[in-house]
Amino acid sequence: MAGETLDGTGMAGFAFGAVAAGLKKRGGLDLALIAAARDVAVAGVFTRNLVRAAPVLLSEARVRAGVARALLVNSGNANACTGEAGLAAARATTRAVAAALGAEEERVLAASTGVIGQLLDAERVTAHIPALVASLVGDCGGFANAILTTDRSPKLTRASAGAARVLGIAKGAGMIHPDVGPPQATMLAFLLTDAVVEPRVLQRLLEHAADESFNRHTVDGDTSTNDSVYALASGASGASPSEAELSAALISVGNALALQMVADGEGAEHVAEIVVSGLRTAAEARQIANTVARSLLVKTALHGKDANWGRLLAAAGRAGVPFAPDQAELAIGGVRIVANGQTLGAEAEAAASLQMRAPRYEIVLTLGNGSGRASVVTCDLGHGYVDVNASYRS
Amino acid sequence: MAGETLDGTGMAGFAFGAVAAGLKKRGGLDLALIAAARDVAVAGVFTRNLVRAAPVLLSEARVRAGVARALLVNSGNANACTGEAGLAAARATTRAVAAALGAEEERVLAASTGVIGQLLDAERVTAHIPALVASLVGDCGGFANAILTTDRSPKLTRASAGAARVLGIAKGAGMIHPDVGPPQATMLAFLLTDAVVEPRVLQRLLEHAADESFNRHTVDGDTSTNDSVYALASGASGASPSEAELSAALISVGNALALQMVADGEGAEHVAEIVVSGLRTAAEARQIANTVARSLLVKTALHGKDANWGRLLAAAGRAGVPFAPDQAELAIGGVRIVANGQTLGAEAEAAASLQMRAPRYEIVLTLGNGSGRASVVTCDLGHGYVDVNASYRS
Repeated sequence: MAGETLDGTGMAGFAFGAVAAGLKKRGGLDLALIAAARDVAVAGVFTRNLVRAAPVLLSEARVRAGVARALLVNSGNANACTGEAGLAAARATTRAVAAALGAEEERVLAASTGVIGQLLDAERVTAHIPALVASLVGDCGGFANAILTTDRSPKLTRASAGAARVLGIAKGAGMIHPDVGPPQATMLAFLLTDAVVEPRVLQRLLEHAADESFNRHTVDGDTSTNDSVYALASGASGASPSEAELSAALISVGNALALQMVADGEGAEHVAEIVVSGLRTAAEARQIANTVARSLLVKTALHGKDANWGRLLAAAGRAGVPFAPDQAELAIGGVRIVANGQTLGAEAEAAASLQMRAPRYEIVLTLGNGSGRASVVTCDLGHGYVDVNASYRS
Repeated sequence: MAGETLDGTGMAGFAFGAVAAGLKKRGGLDLALIAAARDVAVAGVFTRNLVRAAPVLLSEARVRAGVARALLVNSGNANACTGEAGLAAARATTRAVAAALGAEEERVLAASTGVIGQLLDAERVTAHIPALVASLVGDCGGFANAILTTDRSPKLTRASAGAARVLGIAKGAGMIHPDVGPPQATMLAFLLTDAVVEPRVLQRLLEHAADESFNRHTVDGDTSTNDSVYALASGASGASPSEAELSAALISVGNALALQMVADGEGAEHVAEIVVSGLRTAAEARQIANTVARSLLVKTALHGKDANWGRLLAAAGRAGVPFAPDQAELAIGGVRIVANGQTLGAEAEAAASLQMRAPRYEIVLTLGNGSGRASVVTCDLGHGYVDVNASYRS
């Protein structure tokens, strides 16, 4: 879990813009732009939801070319479930960006986040493109703020890949759940590097990194219509890190951003990594970890700092994966509370409960002697989640 | 959805007992008994969770004989994840009931509900068996109260099967989700009839009825370690209803009880029936209905009376079933708000939102022209759910 959080920084070969275009009801920055100095290598992974937003449809097709010049992002409106008019709006806004930058329209990508089902006001967006382009600077701080919706804070991180660097910027609080397998991903995340890398290699490394990072994190199990993860490589460093180096950096940045997203889960106060081991395969372990991580009874127990191992075992038991419950072991925050499927006593449970006051801890479920192991990062579910989501549109 | 709610009643051939044995922290009735005048036909369906409580293991084996004399139920302690000691406790308590009734031990079944992972205090239970047997009466009111945990009210209903009758009694608020397929079910439910019926027929009809009723209802998606549905047939009426008549009565009673359970979902204020049609098969429709019914974003939108059709479509879209989103239609409480995958306008949404103030309404998703149709009943998720489940054990 490397990746350092930054207050704001840049990446060679890229500039960042942000303006307030009036797309968010409550005001503030809501239109953002990443512009490269020239056409650069691009890769993308997108939501596997059958219902896909217009910008996802548009960008997925354009990313296949492997090169891009700019990425237009808006918050406040997801431009999803908006039909042909939504696609036309996405096209019109990227056309305006292309014209302002002197780029080809096909080289401009789009990402949107916000309310589903309301047509994006393309005229309002295009009217703000000149100001957006004029706002371009080397620091991504404004961009990182403009893409947020219910997030409490911007999400930034960086890592090194040999002599090259990787910068990660993301948004995402609710409606987050892994839906694995390329070309799919979760939430909005932008991984920028100054490495020299072929688009096809970048795409392959990004798909792997998304599966090893974003797809291991869940807030509420609701895969969005707009989830997108982009990688853009400017080559400005002149450095060509090895595939292993670049892959490790992308995974590191992905995990750091995903962790920030879960920690910022709507109403979340605690982040728990559910580690499941001892199964026959990693896939089996992941299925159990996912079921436990999504259980409402588990998530409310985390909220109550209740070392309710019965709920944890019950959630594992309904995952559809065979194991011997009477051999199960369980530890919370390093405190063992279950052995042979039974409690180790009230004292152990009280000690585990104390560990659950921490903002972050591990829950380790050992369910046999196999080598299959997986982990999924989740958060507690409290009143804040209900508050945010019962009134999101009003 | 027939089945009339009763304040309390009986069933020919059965007597009901209830006492306070000190198993519930907050006191009150917590030990209950159904006793038949003689050995009667019995059937049962049990949780498919891999982690199964001691009374489930014990009773599932005993039900195979097809005859039973009594059913001991306790609340306050699930006797789950309690290993060999838990099984011994379940056996000891049924043995005490058998001795008090002059029945064979193998003819006494057990069901438990409450906290997982704490050994049932068999001595405390057996000490109260004489008083429990002495409390036997024809009215099931005390029994229906004694089996409750976080429920707000007892759940009772009845139906007719030709000249015979069926009485249903259940408990269940949180930790409710269908996990279909015989021999599985959800929560605790007891269907008593005075019909004459063979055990093998009763078992087959009960499995079908559970799939058509309890398994179509969800509160939180967490299949319990203790879910059990029993059918007991005293034959006291002398009437032998047709299989179709008895099946319809069992389904009717099951649906009425399940609806009461969902309406009593922890913190629930609204019950919504998610009706999905137009798919190729009923199984596909059911998969979508289940995904929508379990979505946290949908359930919190129901709580906020927000006609957030985007969340409903997004949940359908991640169910793993193919359909054309741009042909989707959606109505809430009879108000159409989506056609061709897009909104019918703010006025329609406001009208639908008004319908969502009702305690019960339908959400109808039409996703194509196929004949596959299914419905699942769910409830909203609000602060009450968090309150109950973040502090259940404390």
